[in-house]
Order: sequence, then C-alpha cells, then structure tokens
Amino acid sequence: MKLLCNTLHYRSEVIRLNNYTLRNTKKTGEKKKEKSKITLLEYSEKDFQEKKLQAGDDYLAFKDSPNVVWINIDGIQQAEVIEKIGSSFGLHHLIIEDILNTGHRPKMEDFCEFVYVTLKVLSFDSSNRIVSEQISLVLGQHYVLSFQEREAEIFNPVKDRIRNGLGRLRSTGADYLFYALLDLIVDNYFTVLEKLGEKIEILEEKLVTNPTPATLKSIQELRTGMLFLFKSVWPLREIINGLGRGNCALIKESTGIYLRDVYDHTIQVIDTVETYREVITGMLDIYLSSINNRISEVMKVLTMIATIFIPLTFIVGVYGMNFKYMPELESRWGYPVIWLIMIAIGVLMGFYFKKKKWL
Amino acid sequence: MKLLCNTLHYRSEVIRLNNYTLRNTKKTGEKKKEKSKITLLEYSEKDFQEKKLQAGDDYLAFKDSPNVVWINIDGIQQAEVIEKIGSSFGLHHLIIEDILNTGHRPKMEDFCEFVYVTLKVLSFDSSNRIVSEQISLVLGQHYVLSFQEREAEIFNPVKDRIRNGLGRLRSTGADYLFYALLDLIVDNYFTVLEKLGEKIEILEEKLVTNPTPATLKSIQELRTGMLFLFKSVWPLREIINGLGRGNCALIKESTGIYLRDVYDHTIQVIDTVETYREVITGMLDIYLSSINNRISEVMKVLTMIATIFIPLTFIVGVYGMNFKYMPELESRWGYPVIWLIMIAIGVLMGFYFKKKKWL
Amino acid sequence: MKLLCNTLHYRSEVIRLNNYTLRNTKKTGEKKKEKSKITLLEYSEKDFQEKKLQAGDDYLAFKDSPNVVWINIDGIQQAEVIEKIGSSFGLHHLIIEDILNTGHRPKMEDFCEFVYVTLKVLSFDSSNRIVSEQISLVLGQHYVLSFQEREAEIFNPVKDRIRNGLGRLRSTGADYLFYALLDLIVDNYFTVLEKLGEKIEILEEKLVTNPTPATLKSIQELRTGMLFLFKSVWPLREIINGLGRGNCALIKESTGIYLRDVYDHTIQVIDTVETYREVITGMLDIYLSSINNRISEVMKVLTMIATIFIPLTFIVGVYGMNFKYMPELESRWGYPVIWLIMIAIGVLMGFYFKKKKWL
Amino acid sequence: MKLLCNTLHYRSEVIRLNNYTLRNTKKTGEKKKEKSKITLLEYSEKDFQEKKLQAGDDYLAFKDSPNVVWINIDGIQQAEVIEKIGSSFGLHHLIIEDILNTGHRPKMEDFCEFVYVTLKVLSFDSSNRIVSEQISLVLGQHYVLSFQEREAEIFNPVKDRIRNGLGRLRSTGADYLFYALLDLIVDNYFTVLEKLGEKIEILEEKLVTNPTPATLKSIQELRTGMLFLFKSVWPLREIINGLGRGNCALIKESTGIYLRDVYDHTIQVIDTVETYREVITGMLDIYLSSINNRISEVMKVLTMIATIFIPLTFIVGVYGMNFKYMPELESRWGYPVIWLIMIAIGVLMGFYFKKKKWL
Amino acid sequence: MKLLCNTLHYRSEVIRLNNYTLRNTKKTGEKKKEKSKITLLEYSEKDFQEKKLQAGDDYLAFKDSPNVVWINIDGIQQAEVIEKIGSSFGLHHLIIEDILNTGHRPKMEDFCEFVYVTLKVLSFDSSNRIVSEQISLVLGQHYVLSFQEREAEIFNPVKDRIRNGLGRLRSTGADYLFYALLDLIVDNYFTVLEKLGEKIEILEEKLVTNPTPATLKSIQELRTGMLFLFKSVWPLREIINGLGRGNCALIKESTGIYLRDVYDHTIQVIDTVETYREVITGMLDIYLSSINNRISEVMKVLTMIATIFIPLTFIVGVYGMNFKYMPELESRWGYPVIWLIMIAIGVLMGFYFKKKKWL
Repeated sequence: MKLLCNTLHYRSEVIRLNNYTLRNTKKTGEKKKEKSKITLLEYSEKDFQEKKLQAGDDYLAFKDSPNVVWINIDGIQQAEVIEKIGSSFGLHHLIIEDILNTGHRPKMEDFCEFVYVTLKVLSFDSSNRIVSEQISLVLGQHYVLSFQEREAEIFNPVKDRIRNGLGRLRSTGADYLFYALLDLIVDNYFTVLEKLGEKIEILEEKLVTNPTPATLKSIQELRTGMLFLFKSVWPLREIINGLGRGNCALIKESTGIYLRDVYDHTIQVIDTVETYREVITGMLDIYLSSINNRISEVMKVLTMIATIFIPLTFIVGVYGMNFKYMPELESRWGYPVIWLIMIAIGVLMGFYFKKKKWL
Repeated sequence: MKLLCNTLHYRSEVIRLNNYTLRNTKKTGEKKKEKSKITLLEYSEKDFQEKKLQAGDDYLAFKDSPNVVWINIDGIQQAEVIEKIGSSFGLHHLIIEDILNTGHRPKMEDFCEFVYVTLKVLSFDSSNRIVSEQISLVLGQHYVLSFQEREAEIFNPVKDRIRNGLGRLRSTGADYLFYALLDLIVDNYFTVLEKLGEKIEILEEKLVTNPTPATLKSIQELRTGMLFLFKSVWPLREIINGLGRGNCALIKESTGIYLRDVYDHTIQVIDTVETYREVITGMLDIYLSSINNRISEVMKVLTMIATIFIPLTFIVGVYGMNFKYMPELESRWGYPVIWLIMIAIGVLMGFYFKKKKWL
Repeated sequence: MKLLCNTLHYRSEVIRLNNYTLRNTKKTGEKKKEKSKITLLEYSEKDFQEKKLQAGDDYLAFKDSPNVVWINIDGIQQAEVIEKIGSSFGLHHLIIEDILNTGHRPKMEDFCEFVYVTLKVLSFDSSNRIVSEQISLVLGQHYVLSFQEREAEIFNPVKDRIRNGLGRLRSTGADYLFYALLDLIVDNYFTVLEKLGEKIEILEEKLVTNPTPATLKSIQELRTGMLFLFKSVWPLREIINGLGRGNCALIKESTGIYLRDVYDHTIQVIDTVETYREVITGMLDIYLSSINNRISEVMKVLTMIATIFIPLTFIVGVYGMNFKYMPELESRWGYPVIWLIMIAIGVLMGFYFKKKKWL
Repeated sequence: MKLLCNTLHYRSEVIRLNNYTLRNTKKTGEKKKEKSKITLLEYSEKDFQEKKLQAGDDYLAFKDSPNVVWINIDGIQQAEVIEKIGSSFGLHHLIIEDILNTGHRPKMEDFCEFVYVTLKVLSFDSSNRIVSEQISLVLGQHYVLSFQEREAEIFNPVKDRIRNGLGRLRSTGADYLFYALLDLIVDNYFTVLEKLGEKIEILEEKLVTNPTPATLKSIQELRTGMLFLFKSVWPLREIINGLGRGNCALIKESTGIYLRDVYDHTIQVIDTVETYREVITGMLDIYLSSINNRISEVMKVLTMIATIFIPLTFIVGVYGMNFKYMPELESRWGYPVIWLIMIAIGVLMGFYFKKKKWL
Repeated sequence: MKLLCNTLHYRSEVIRLNNYTLRNTKKTGEKKKEKSKITLLEYSEKDFQEKKLQAGDDYLAFKDSPNVVWINIDGIQQAEVIEKIGSSFGLHHLIIEDILNTGHRPKMEDFCEFVYVTLKVLSFDSSNRIVSEQISLVLGQHYVLSFQEREAEIFNPVKDRIRNGLGRLRSTGADYLFYALLDLIVDNYFTVLEKLGEKIEILEEKLVTNPTPATLKSIQELRTGMLFLFKSVWPLREIINGLGRGNCALIKESTGIYLRDVYDHTIQVIDTVETYREVITGMLDIYLSSINNRISEVMKVLTMIATIFIPLTFIVGVYGMNFKYMPELESRWGYPVIWLIMIAIGVLMGFYFKKKKWL
C-alpha cells in the first residue's frame, strides 16, 4: 500500500497544476528545501569543459553553443531555478510543470524543436521497498537537459566517459548523449530486477521449508512491487518507439540503431517482469495448497489417534461397567485376553493406515 | 448492487427517448422539481460580467457575442429551460435529450459547429458509497454551455480565476475554458481515488488484524466501486483523443498541449484504478487464505488436545476395568507408576508437536 | 444447459440449409404450424393505411410504392409465404433461408439494394429462464420488412406512433422507421437487464442470510444467462456500426445521428452486462468463502467442546481407576477438590477461547 | 493427453519435410498401407460421369477439361499416387508434402492458379474420444481435388446432389463445389458440438447427484477436447475470410455470398465453443465447492455427535469415580436425576443445532 | 527459479554493452575459454569445398565469392575472432555485441545489405531442466554466417545434405541455406515439446495414483519451463514474418513459400505450447481438488469412528457409574441386553453411513 500511497501522494502535488509552487512550498516544511545542484558538461571532439552553474547564470548562451551542452540538474525543489532554465531553453510552461511535479507516468512529448521525456528510476530504500524517482530529459539540437529529483549517481558512467573521451560519446552529437542516458536508465531496471529475482528465490526457499502467513504477505508485496515496476517500464516501449519515429530529425539516423538496442532491452525487461509475475502467481498457488496440505496432515494425525483409541476406550469402558453378572470379569484370563484383543486391533489399524498411505 | 441499480434506474429514464418529458414529470412526484439555476459569465481580456439568467431570457443573443460566453446550468429538472437554451444554440434534439437523461455513458459528439461531451463526476454520499452525477459540456466557437445534474461547486475554481483575471483564462478563447472545466473533472477523479486508497489501507489493516466476513463484503464493495470508477473513466481516453483530432478547429492548436495534459492525467487515473483492482484481488486471496489458516490453527489445537488426552483416557480406562485378576491394581506402586507413564507420554507428545512446528 | 441446448437445437434446423423445408415440415409434427400473420402499414406524411395481407396477395406492387411501406410478418412457419414475399422483394435465397432458420447469430448483410439484419429479442419464459426469438429486418429504399418468430407486441409502440401520426415517423423515410424498430429491440435488452439485476439482488440477499448449494446453482444459471445475453448483444456493435458506414445511401445522413444514439445504447447494454458478470464472479467468491467460513465455525464449536471436556474426562477417568492404593480417593475432600480443579480448568479454557476470539 | 500426443505424433511425421517418404515407409510397418481410392466426378449442366481412377491414369488431361472435374482421393498412404496427381495439376512440392503429412494446423495458401486449403474433420472414436482427420482441398479454375486421410462418407451428400442433378451444383462452377465441400466440413463441427453438448448435460446431472473424482476427470477431458475443437476451428475464420478476399478470381462473386454464409456458421461454432468453455469452467467451480460442501456436512455430523456426547460422557465419568465420600452416589434419586439432567442437556443441544441451522 | 536466474545472469553480461570484453574476460575465470571452431562450406551447383578456418585467415575474400559461402562459428568466447569476422563482413559493432552476448530475446534486424537474426535453441541438461543456447545467423547476398554458443550438432543434417549434394540445397542460393538452418531450429522446438509432453503424461499418471507436494512442485516447474519455451518461440512469428516482408530482396521469391512453411511450423509450436499451458492449469486444479478430496476422505473415517463409538462409550460409561441404586446393574440380563442395544446402534449407524454414501 505504501507504494500506492506514494502514487497518490505524488499526484496530490499534481492536482492543481496551476499552483504547484504553493504546494511545493508547503512540502518544504516537511523536507528541507535542498538547493538544486547544476552541472554543465560542454564538449566537442576536441574540447571539453565541466563546471558548476549557479541559479543566477545566463543559460541562454548555452542554447546555441556549437558544442554539445549537457546541463544536469540534481534536485528540483527550487522551482524558480527550473523555471529559469526552462524558459531560457524555450520549454512550454506545462513541460516545466511536468518537470517540477514528480507524480507523472513516463511519457514523451515531441515539440520538434526539442523532445521531452520523463521516466522513473527505481531503487530500494533502507527497508527494502521499491521507491521511484522521476528523471526528466530534454533533447534539443545541440543540448541535453537532465533533471533528477535528488542528487544521484546514475549518470556517472556517462560523465566519466565524456571526461575521459572514451567511446564514441565525444565524437557524436547530443542525440547520442541522450541515448546513453536512456540506456543507463534502462540498465537500472535490470539491477532492480536482479534484486527482485533474489527476493523471489528466498521466498521460494521459505515456501518449501516453512510457509507462514508472513510468507503470503511477502508474496503479495512482491506482486505489488512487480506491478509497480511494470507500470514504470511499460510506457517506455512507446516512448522509445516514438523517439525513433520522430520526424524532426533531432535523432540522427546513425543513432537509430542504438535506440533500437535500448528498445530491445526494454522489451526484455517487460518480458522478465511478465515472467516474474507468472512465477509469483505460481507461488501463491503453492502457498495456498500448502495450507490445505497442512490441514490434511493434521487431520490425518487426529484421525489416526481417534481411530485407534476411541474403539479401545470403548472396550475398556465395557469392562468398567458394574453389572453384577459379567462372566468375562470373573475369568482368570479375561484381562490378558482383552489386552491381546486391543493390541490386535491396534496392529490392524496400523496396517489399514499403511494401506491408505497415511503413514 | 446499489450502484448497479442506479445504472438501471438512470436508464429507465432513458428507455423511451421520445417521451422523456412524461417520465420526468412522473419523477417530479418523487423529487421536488428544483428550478434550474442559470449563470452567465461573459468575458474578454478586458471586460467581465457575471449575472444570473432567467428561463425567459433571450439566449440567442449570446450565441454570437464577440466575447467568450459561459452559461452554466445547475439542475436539469426543468426540461423546458434546457430545451429553450438548447434550441437557441442550435443543439440537435437528441443532444438535448442526452443532456436531460442522466444515465449515459461518457461520450463525445462532434457536430463541427459545436462539440458535445457528457461525463460523470463522482462523489461519496453520506453512507460512503460512490454516487455519480452527469455533467454535459457544449463547446461552440465562442461559448461554452455546462449542464450539471445538481448545483455543485466543482467549477468554482475556474469561476474564481475568471473573476479575478488570474492565469491565462481571460486572455484565451472558449476552447481553453472548455479545457479548464475538463481538467477540473479529471482532477475530481484523483480526489475519489485518494479516498478509495484510504479505504483500501483501512481494509488491509483489518485483513491483518481481524478478518471477518464483513471484511470480505467491504472488499467486494470496493471492487464493485472500482469497476464503476473504471467504467466512468475509461471512455474519457477516447473522448479526449477525439477532441484533439477534431477537424473543425473548435480546439485551437495552442490548446492542444493542454488537452494532451488532461489526457495524460486520464491515463494516470486509469493506471491507478488498474493497480487498485490488482491490489484488491490480492486482498481477496489473503482473505481466503486467512480463513483456511484459521481452520488450520483450530485443527491444530483440537488435534493436540485429542492426541494427548485420548490415549491417556484409554489408559485410565484400562485401570477402571473391573476384572478380578488385574495384578497392577494390587501393586503398591501401580498408581504412581501409571502417573509417571502418563506424564512421560504427555512430554513426548509435546516434543513431537514441537518437532512438527505446531507449538 | 437449457440455453445451450436451445442454441444447438436451433442450429439443428440450420444444418442443411438446402433442405430446410423438409426439416420444418418435420417440426410441424411437434408444434402446430401457425399461419403467418401479415400486416401492411403504408404511410406518407399525409396518407396512412393499415391492412392485413394474405399469403396470396401481390407483393410486387409494394416494392415500388411512393409511400413508405412496412410489412410485418408474425410467425415464420409458413415457409412458402416467406419465400413468396422474399422473392417479390428480390431477396437472395440464402437470405430467405436465414429468415426461416432461427439459430443465427445476429448479423448484417448489405446488398446495396437492401440491407438485411437479424437480431435476437430476449424474454423470460414461465419458469423464469431467458428465451430468445429471432427478428429479421430488411430495409429497402422505401420499404421495411420485419419477420418475427412468433406474434409479439414488441413493435406496438412504433405502430401506434405511425397510426397517430405522432413524432417524426410519418414525415421521414423508411430508414427512420428501420431505426425506430432497432431502437425498440435495444430497449428490450434494458428490460431484460433490469430483471436480471433484480435476480442478482435477490441472490445477494440470500448469499448473506443463508447460502445453500441451491444458491450456487442459481449463481451459475445467472452466469450462463449473462453469457447468453452477452452473445446476443455483442455483435450488435458491429452491425450498427456497419449500418452507419453503409455506402449505398439507404440510411440517410439525417438518420445517422439516431443510429449513433442506438449505438450508444448498445454500448451501454454491453457495459452493464460486463459489470454484472464481474458482480456475479464476486458473488461466487463470497459463496465459496462462506462455505469455508462455515467449516471454520463448525470446527470452532467442535474444538471448544473437545478442548474443555476431553481433559476433564481424563481426570474423572483417573479417579475411576481401581488401584488399591490411591490416597486421594480416601480423602474427605477429594471429591469437592476435584470439582474445583475441573471448574478452574473450564474457566481457564474459557479465557483462552476469549483471547483467541473464538467466542 | 491422448489428444496432445496425437498432435505430437502427427508432427513427428512432419519433422523432416524432406524425407517424408522414409517416414511413411517406416509407418507402413505399423499400419497396413492402404491403397488410395481415387474417384472422378466430371460434370457440366448437361453431362455427368463418375468413375474410379487408377494410380497409372493420365491426370494431365483433367486439368483442362471444359467441364467441372472433381477428383476425390480417399487414403493418402500411397505417397507416389499423391505426388503424381499433384505434379499433374502443377502443385508445388511443399503443398504435396503438406497433403501427405497430417499434422498440420488448418491453413490456406493462395497460388493464384489454385488455392490450397487444409482442414480438420473431427469425429468420436470407439472409446468416445475426439479424433481428427485432415482433409486437403485444392481449387483450380475448373477442378477441385480433395484428399482424405481415410475413406470417409463426409462428402456423400454433395456426391448425391451431383449425381441426381439436384440444387445448383451442376449449373455452377468448381468454386461452388468447393464451397459445398467446405460447408459439409463446417456442418461436421455442429455434429461434434451436439455430442459434446450431450456430454456436458450428462456431467451436469452427475455433478448434482453424485460428484466423484471421476467426474472431475471427465470435466477436464471435456475441457481438453473443447480446446482441441477450438484450435481446429479458430483458423477457419481467417481461411474463409482469405478465400473471399482472394484477388485471382477463382471464387466468383456469385459464390461470395455462400462463403459469407459458411463464415457465419464458423463464427457460430466458435461462439458455441466459447460458451461451452465458460460452462465447463462453471462446472469446475461447482465441483470444487461441492467437495467443500461435503466436508462441511461431514464436519457438522461429527460436531453434533461430539458436542452432545462428550459432555455426557464426562458426567457419567464423574459418577464412575471411586471417591469414598460422594454424597450423590448414596442418594436414592441420584441415578434418575442424572438421567434427567443428561436428557435435558441433549434436548438443549438439539435446540442449539436447530438455531444454528445444522439440522 | 533456475531458469529465471539464467535470464538475469545472461543479462548481467549484457548490462554494459560497451565493456563486454571485460565481462567476458571475467567469466573466463569461471569457464575455460574455449577456442572458437570455424568451419567454411563453399558450394555452387557443381563445386563444393569444406575446410577449417583459423582466426588469422582473411575473411574479406569470402564476402564476394561467386559461390554460396557458409561460415559456421562454434563457440563465441574468443571475442576477437568474432569481431574480426564481423568487421570483415561489415557488421555494425552493435550487432557484433549482440552476437557476443547471449542474453538476448530472439530478434531480427534488417540492414538491407544483410539480415541479422538471433534465436534460442533449447535442450535439456543432465538434471532434466531446460537450458537455452543462443544462435545468431547473418544472411548476406551470397553468404550465411552462423554463430553458436557451443559446439553443437544441430546443423549437421544440412551440412550432410550439402556434402552429398542431396536435395535442392546445392542448386539454390544463400537464402535457401538460411531457410534450411531456420527450419532445423524450429524443428528443435518440436523435439523439446515432445519431451515436455512426456513429462506431462508422467505427471498426469502421478496425479491420479498418488499426488504429493512434490507433484505440485513438478507441475510448477513444468509451468515455468513452458513459459520459458513460449518466450523463446513467440518472437519468432514476427521475425519470420519480417523476413518475408524484407524489401531488399535478400530472400528470393522462390524461397518465400519455404519461409511460409517455417512460419506455419512456428505457429504450430506456439499453438501446442498454449495447449500444454492449459493442460497444466487443469492439472493444478486436479491437484488442488485432490487434496481437498483427501481431507474429505479422512474426515469421513474420523466421523464414522466417532459417530459409532462416542455414543457407545457414553452408554458403557453410564453403567460404570457407582450409584447405589441402579436397578439395571442388578438384573441378570442387563449385560447381554446392553450388548444387544450397542450392536443395534452400530448396525443402524452402518445403514446411515450407507445411505449417506460414506461407505
């Protein structure tokens, strides 16, 4: 439920798009308003510079730089900064609102002049629950803007490759950078899947050895988590497809094959999620049947005990009666004979249960 | 079932579209016929006027006003008023019937000259059940008509924004007003979802602590409610899509992006509803297995008691027999030895249950 | 199963389309062959005449009447009459066979010169089961033919409106009449739905108060009935859609909006049927869990009785033993102390059950 | 499983298409290689001849006969015959392989010069299981070839109609003959459905009177059978659709309406199969709940017996104790009073069970 | 879970496409790096040569050979060899990465100059679990490259046919060779299906004779395996479809019909997998109900024993009471009469159980 509440909670930020500032201000009371950290990476095949930008800097200049410009913003609490950057790069005010509000479903908007994509990055919090962060990416002719909810290290591999001039990054355009970031995000899902896969394995182990109601709860949590993951990944198919079909040539043809590659990975994530969901359904079946099995086992024990001893108790009851004339009681061999009879009954019952495969 | 009955009940008003007046008259006996309350908001970038209109006013004049005209009608019991307004604005008589009959599925009709949209607004009644009201919107070149089943405050935020000249509303056309109203209605679904989400959380709590048949009933009610919500929201996708594709230019291109925004929110509502439905299904599974678990627990107690005491009762029965020759009975240590034996049996049983994890 | 058998039974009439006369003759032995009742309504804006026609009349003349001609045939046992009328109006012999055989799935065939539609009308028989009748409609340029399996009153409202010259019927063409008949048939489904809705409510009541295996049977019957209804209504969507798209101008544009209205109603019927099906599925879940609940309740009673009395019985058994040396037996207070001990055990058990929420 | 094994078994013939002769030879060891029986029917509106052909005859002549030529081959074990006929009529060698191997899914191939269709005909074997045979049809400009796995009588009605010159067959072309054969095959499915419907009814009867594990097995077998039927019929939709759209004019327009008729019947078969599958699912639910019900019934009996007698046994146990000082034992009325108390307890229990609706 | 882990494991190789060499090197520690075995088959209608190639050979020459060139690489651990061959034939570096990384979903990429297809070949490992290997195929104008994860014999039949000049292979182009390889791979699925079918049969047998929790586990494993198979086969539909539609004429029209044949087989595999999945679902139902049945059986035994002996034990308890005045005890016939009464009760109970069908 926590997950779902988050969804709603996110949304409650969204409810009135026109007064998000108010909302965010209110939230500031809860979380300390973190300052956005703005990093610029500007590079061409030969040049490369990296610097921290301030809220007050002039962003307009970057828009038309001949080099590839990547501005990464960590932390979106400072709405005024985001707004300033957004308007410098000519983003529609609805897009700026989308960046500021973190409850969005992954989506893509193609404005020809630039493409806007918003995605979810998933991770596990300290109590091992999935949490999601929103990442917004804007791709223009020569620039990429990336907005992260919190400072995170997900983009570090690409930063390193730019700094070191490794791979094709430095020699290609903004669209390849854009692809590289997308690729990192999709790779992130595989990491999450791997952890979920481990959880599934642990649960499977528990299911076999000692299924308890807590196991059921874990299975259900896993199911909800998987659903959450699915909802985050599913829209990606269309987004990446849409990027490939975009008719405004922001994505060059040579980058197309890389997008197709990311697309293949996305499909694979979706495939694996679907497989996991089926496996979890199977685990539910096993859990439910294991309860029934246990009932069946308990019943067998009860029935064996009762079936053996109730008749015997009846017999000893008979000879506990106080009738004056009970010839057996007088007999010298009455007592041992009764024992023999009772042992015989017990042994016969044993054979009966053997035959019924209860033992 | 209440919900479903409403659906049918609504429909029964619809059954003969050609004699709805008759029907509505008949219903007047049941509910006091409320007078429709008609409000006019006329504005341009500079001017603004708001006034209450009467049934007898001349509506034809408003149709060709150079300003944006918004006529909001609260209460649709007075069929003759609706008909008068409808014919002044050139609405087809089937559309007028659709406005008057509240059992419709959300739909959109594009007449080029105007667009007709009917939607559901959901709320909770006093006994916490979802009830739905129909809202019909008509968008013309320069006017918007809105028909509400009852006087409601859902449109107040937009009214305030017009009155105060805040935001873009005053400087844009009727299509932006139309969008703003749609947006309010979709936001309404989020409020409903939030309440349903709380209900789900409360039920989850109950499921864990003390599941009763009443819990099951609540889960089922929630499921039906969710289905109802789903049926209200699902057609919206196509409606808003259709509005965007409309080829008669009632919706200007600049408003297109706002429609897309509403569309995204609709998708998000649908997504959340689907997630909730899966969660509810999971709750059903937990409920059912919790009953089985309880049976299993009860069985264990019974079996432990029986397994320990039935054999012991047999033993004491043995020494309650009245055979003449039972050497144990004569022995000085017979009684304490029997006690020792029985205690030993009890302790062994305890270990057995420990091993079986029943304790 | 009755329903399904009907389907098959209908079909068995259809199996060899080429020798249906034979088949129908054979069936005559079973049901008395009823004479077809043929009614003509011919009208224009000013004129109106109604008369009963005979099998021997000349139907060719009606085909080219300048007025709107509606020929309604009640009862299709007289194959030769249907064939005569059919060939007078130029119907393909396969269409005539379709009219004569009542096992068809709803469908539409557009021959440009005329449109053929076959539909199901549902009603409840004396033992409250759904039965279906086939109605075939043929729309030509100026005429409508309607074939009903049995004499039925479903079309009476339209007949009355023509007779009295009420509404738009007299002033419009054959296509509007065709629409009016379709509309009556779709309205018929709402009536059936209303009854099914009542049945569902009654069953829900029973489910809560006293669920028996008979309740389960009723639920399953309802489910089958709903499936049957669904199969009757589902093809209507495409049929009405197809009528709207027909490119031979039999349906005038002005009638298009009315067809769209019927279409909306059809969608609403389908929607409601789907909702009902989900509700019925929920009822099944409640039923199944109520059985388990009952088992759980019974188990609790048994376990309480056993848990209290089995240990007590053991105790009294102990003092029923006949050992020579049992010091307690000699004691003056043995008997009352044992009673106190047993009462204490009983009370403790009571508290235990209270804690376990079994009481 | 038998059914599935068949599927695989069929396939194992198919595995290497290039060495089917080998395979078939190997199979000859198992089944006696039956000689193919080849029948020719050649007719025009006026002429008609029928004769048995031999493997050695010259088939090339028939291809360009001015009359309609129908060659029916019963038995496909003699691969060399099929190959000879196939190459005479210019069939691609893959098609010949398809004819020879009986494990194919129904499919259609349009070669413009001729159309190839392969279908399944279902029947019940001696132990009442569904078995399927493959029928391949080839339609050319003036000829139809039909290949049956075994000699069967399914085409007899058409043969009779040709012989007797009844109906339209003699006056129409090869495409109408082709339709007539398809129609017979689809009619065959109705026969199978009818038998399955009877089986369902018998099982429903059993479910109500005396459900046993054998009933469950029958239900599952029926479900598998239905699946098998579904898989045989489902591809027919596209096949017949494809025939209608074929752009090489092998199917004349006048035959189009007949194909549409077969199409309607196919849809009806599919519809009925789907309905049956839902009914069978419902039967499973009833079966499962009937087991639970039985457990519930058994539990009630046990609990009643235990609840009445366990306390009574305790009471008699009390007065079986051997305490020296038990005043009740001395009393003259002790015994009858205890009886009264015990009877009172029994009667009260009776009322309790009545109230709980266990009796 | 093993299967799923494999998926993840494979993927973990894929995670960073840009540093696969690193990864593979790391893996080398685990598995001994096997040398790739490269085989060349070059043939035309008349000529044929086969030789082993070395990593250092010049591959460029083969690209433009006038004959059909087939280079088969067994073992892809030697990344540098694959890279060399790949670049000689002008493969995009992403394709080379795809070949090297074995975690891919089956897919097809059409580069006009060549077509790249990657597929899974399934087999059973020593502990009878499904394992999958990746096979990559590249089809150029006159050449086919095939990359296998391990040395395997799957392509031997085609090699033999080329060597012996049997069939059409030698006289046709590279596209026919490509088809022949695809065909072998699809045939491989039938073999796997056959084995799975046998497993299903064995499990069905077990289900009937002695269902244990181990049976359930096997069913679930089978279900996961089937899912795995499904995921491997499903994408093949689109791949083969895509090959047929390819607009760069690599696949000649004459080969089209063969592709359609492979397509039909693929559909058949998918069909059978779906059937198996339904059968497995049915087995789950049978398993679950068999547990309930067993509970029901055990309950019956318990209830019969209890119902017969508890009342009898009560009776003997009555006459074990020590009341001074119990006239029955004094009577000469008390004891035998009590026996008669008890036998009568037992017999009556027997009849009761007979009537209830518990015996």
